[in-house]
Amino acid sequence: MSLVVVGSMAFDAIETPFGKSNRIVGGAATYIAWSASNFTRPIKQVSVVGGDFPKDELKLLEARGVNLEGVQVKENEKSFFWSGKYHLDMNTRDTLETQLNVLANFEPTVPNDYQDCDFLMLGNLNPHIQLSVIKQIEKRPKLVALDTMNFWMETALGDLEKTLTKIDVLIINDSEARQLSGQFSLVKAAKEILKMGPKYLVIKKGEHGALLFDANEVFFAPALPLEEVFDPTGAGDTFAGGFMGHIARTKDLSFNNMKRAIIVGSAMASFCVEKFGTTRLKEINAGDIESRIQLFKNLVSFDIELD
Amino acid sequence: MSLVVVGSMAFDAIETPFGKSNRIVGGAATYIAWSASNFTRPIKQVSVVGGDFPKDELKLLEARGVNLEGVQVKENEKSFFWSGKYHLDMNTRDTLETQLNVLANFEPTVPNDYQDCDFLMLGNLNPHIQLSVIKQIEKRPKLVALDTMNFWMETALGDLEKTLTKIDVLIINDSEARQLSGQFSLVKAAKEILKMGPKYLVIKKGEHGALLFDANEVFFAPALPLEEVFDPTGAGDTFAGGFMGHIARTKDLSFNNMKRAIIVGSAMASFCVEKFGTTRLKEINAGDIESRIQLFKNLVSFDIELD
Repeated sequence: MSLVVVGSMAFDAIETPFGKSNRIVGGAATYIAWSASNFTRPIKQVSVVGGDFPKDELKLLEARGVNLEGVQVKENEKSFFWSGKYHLDMNTRDTLETQLNVLANFEPTVPNDYQDCDFLMLGNLNPHIQLSVIKQIEKRPKLVALDTMNFWMETALGDLEKTLTKIDVLIINDSEARQLSGQFSLVKAAKEILKMGPKYLVIKKGEHGALLFDANEVFFAPALPLEEVFDPTGAGDTFAGGFMGHIARTKDLSFNNMKRAIIVGSAMASFCVEKFGTTRLKEINAGDIESRIQLFKNLVSFDIELD
Repeated sequence: MSLVVVGSMAFDAIETPFGKSNRIVGGAATYIAWSASNFTRPIKQVSVVGGDFPKDELKLLEARGVNLEGVQVKENEKSFFWSGKYHLDMNTRDTLETQLNVLANFEPTVPNDYQDCDFLMLGNLNPHIQLSVIKQIEKRPKLVALDTMNFWMETALGDLEKTLTKIDVLIINDSEARQLSGQFSLVKAAKEILKMGPKYLVIKKGEHGALLFDANEVFFAPALPLEEVFDPTGAGDTFAGGFMGHIARTKDLSFNNMKRAIIVGSAMASFCVEKFGTTRLKEINAGDIESRIQLFKNLVSFDIELD
């Protein structure tokens, strides 16, 4: 059994109110793999990079139990590049530059060795690529989760809608949930979106936490109040990695275990934002993660006797 | 022992994306009393109204155990009036009209019968009025809580700062906390504000819940995800009323009990927004409140075993 992760592996250049990074390694699948590898192995990566992507970074991931057989390396091309600038509230950002490069014509190939996929995490990418990976995996995984963004709702809604009928968990942020559903109320948005295919919907609200919906229940996970959000880049992917990592580790698909997975994802995201890029994710260990999850428990725990 | 409540009793005219109210009864002290009277009696009100304030509304409050001896009735003047229009997100609003009327020259007089005050809730008002009430109560209450707003930070900061040194709990919203502290991060804002006098700070984040800080701890209470927020007017006052009502009922000033008080306040606020004005607060009973608190428990409860 394995967790298969699909997504970009890329370069980012980031400006926040706290500083400016050079071109650093990023990409949805990078963050997902770093995060999930704390909980489950092997992780089997599907992605594409250019010849400029640091071989050292690939080796670091392999050392974490990440299988890179499904990562195409196009030696004569350049990796995907994104640069952006965050506003003071860190919930909004402007894209300064996007170079698709190797992503422009990316056609994923799922290696034979990945056919043991029990858990599939589709990071934010063109939905036709996400759908292609779903179709290449012969035995339906136990759980398929998907992240997407407003750009695909605007430019590839048909493909996205088709893909949504094939998945179990949709992980998006609040503005994306509003856009996809046409509903301002997140409760109403969830009802609409759950009609589109997914059985579970996770709505990420950044510093305001995350909501988990199924047809009957709702769960709310807080975000940790932090002194400083240094760099939010990758926080959503890191959240998804923690979520799927926990599910893959426990193999328990109950709503109660999804709740735990959301807390684990939130804890992982709270590390991610503490430093630029994947820096913090490379530093933390199991003890750090346990302590952080304990903070989340303390943050929302109360006992109230109802007469 | 009693809970003394200070604040406006007034008329509002409200426009939301869901509808428009006529001139309806509102005011901070009105909402606080309706909310707190579910938990504690007597409540002793300090306020001022004009001859136009409905006598029936005063009788309804008296029937709830609210002592109105400290409410001045200026028969030949008009009650405070506010009208406003909410934006789609319901977290922001424009003031359309403010008529101070009786509030313009309000000098509160605390009746002798109120000197048994154990708990004092200072609703949003000019801080010099709030301070005057504090000074008129001879024996220091067990707990003094205060609500205020950006308007007083801009026009009466000196008075506000003086008043903050006399209180225990400050209850404000996130933008007010940022303005008062000059810090964007709410964690940093809390540190600054706790230096100004209060031992506890409650930061209300509307649909995003509320945070409770003391010098060492932080607690997060979610807001209930609602299909519709019909009218947010008075939600903050209703929250404060639930908070102080619970504290007055239990007489327990521990951080753990403050956490419960925040949950009770959040539950009460979640009723308030369901209909215009105080309508919903007049309908609910103890059973409704218990069920609602149970929803809050369910919303954030998770069990996670740390290895």
